[in-house]
Amino acid sequence: MARIARKEQVLGSAAELFAAEGFAATSVQKVADRARLTKAGLYYHIRDKEDLLFRICDHSISTILAGARQAMSRVSDPQARIAALILNHAEFFRNHPDNLTVLNRDLNALSPQPRAAIRKLERAYLELLRGAISDGQKAGVVRRGIDPTVGAFTILAALNTLHNWYDPKGRIGYRSTVRQITAVLCQGLFTTNEDAKRSARNG
Amino acid sequence: MARIARKEQVLGSAAELFAAEGFAATSVQKVADRARLTKAGLYYHIRDKEDLLFRICDHSISTILAGARQAMSRVSDPQARIAALILNHAEFFRNHPDNLTVLNRDLNALSPQPRAAIRKLERAYLELLRGAISDGQKAGVVRRGIDPTVGAFTILAALNTLHNWYDPKGRIGYRSTVRQITAVLCQGLFTTNEDAKRSARNG
Repeated sequence: MARIARKEQVLGSAAELFAAEGFAATSVQKVADRARLTKAGLYYHIRDKEDLLFRICDHSISTILAGARQAMSRVSDPQARIAALILNHAEFFRNHPDNLTVLNRDLNALSPQPRAAIRKLERAYLELLRGAISDGQKAGVVRRGIDPTVGAFTILAALNTLHNWYDPKGRIGYRSTVRQITAVLCQGLFTTNEDAKRSARNG
Repeated sequence: MARIARKEQVLGSAAELFAAEGFAATSVQKVADRARLTKAGLYYHIRDKEDLLFRICDHSISTILAGARQAMSRVSDPQARIAALILNHAEFFRNHPDNLTVLNRDLNALSPQPRAAIRKLERAYLELLRGAISDGQKAGVVRRGIDPTVGAFTILAALNTLHNWYDPKGRIGYRSTVRQITAVLCQGLFTTNEDAKRSARNG
């Protein structure tokens, strides 16, 4: 197996175990067993258990941020941009549910320096979400009463807790679930024709 | 201090410590110190550390459920009911932020039997939220495209993650934050006059 593919497999195994059992409760030996490596073989790819956690968090937020930036460069309509950002985040969760669980729950187990590096990427992502909401408000297509920070965290909340309740074997498919959540968030954030008429009457 | 007041103080101290440091990392001795009791004095009020966790979870979900039932009996308009349920949940968080953090994060540390008792109350609460959304759909004031389960979990997600980001010392007050989240959720869930006209045209 190529070195990069092997490394991805190691991170995938670790994310799975951390998500299911928690970072603290997972030993390096368990990760090695899951990845079908000896402990020495595992240490060829990673420095220590914290390094594994850092790489999982870094991979998660870096991938989401790259996808979000791509969406922003591809789409120009302010409402479509917000919808594209929501879908980008949901798509990452669909493909890497364990990574997102670990990022959202175990980040505080990192020591200060690596944690700060992840936090910096998280802030860049939050700024991007806030900016998209704020641009929508300037264009008159997002309600002005919603502070961009509150709007951004409401979007993140709805998506980042999916792993707590969404059942892949359940009655509602993933695409349909995400479409419905996107509809609630977008309809909740966007102005309607009625808002526009009301504001024209009042202005 | 009366016995009941003392017991509440014990639960409050424990919730504070569990929320800040995690259930696993908090010793009974630490809880006793925080509550200004000897360890023996603490054991007069509780059986063991797990008992503390159970009581915190039970208090949280029982109080939210009682408030939700009261809101349902007081308010009859289907849209106002959903808004009242959101406010009831937000109000509990405002008054007991640590309790809700512990309920949402540490419930799995309980052994099967007490956990099942809490899960039962959680399901009753979820059913109440789902019912309010479904009633709104029957009355034509909640969009039909939203599955009540997805709607209910989107509401819970937005409120249960407040503790991750809301800063009581920040620029946006709590009431204003909750009002904005409620607006996004309600506008996202409720039908508008435009929807009504569209459905009249299509029907």
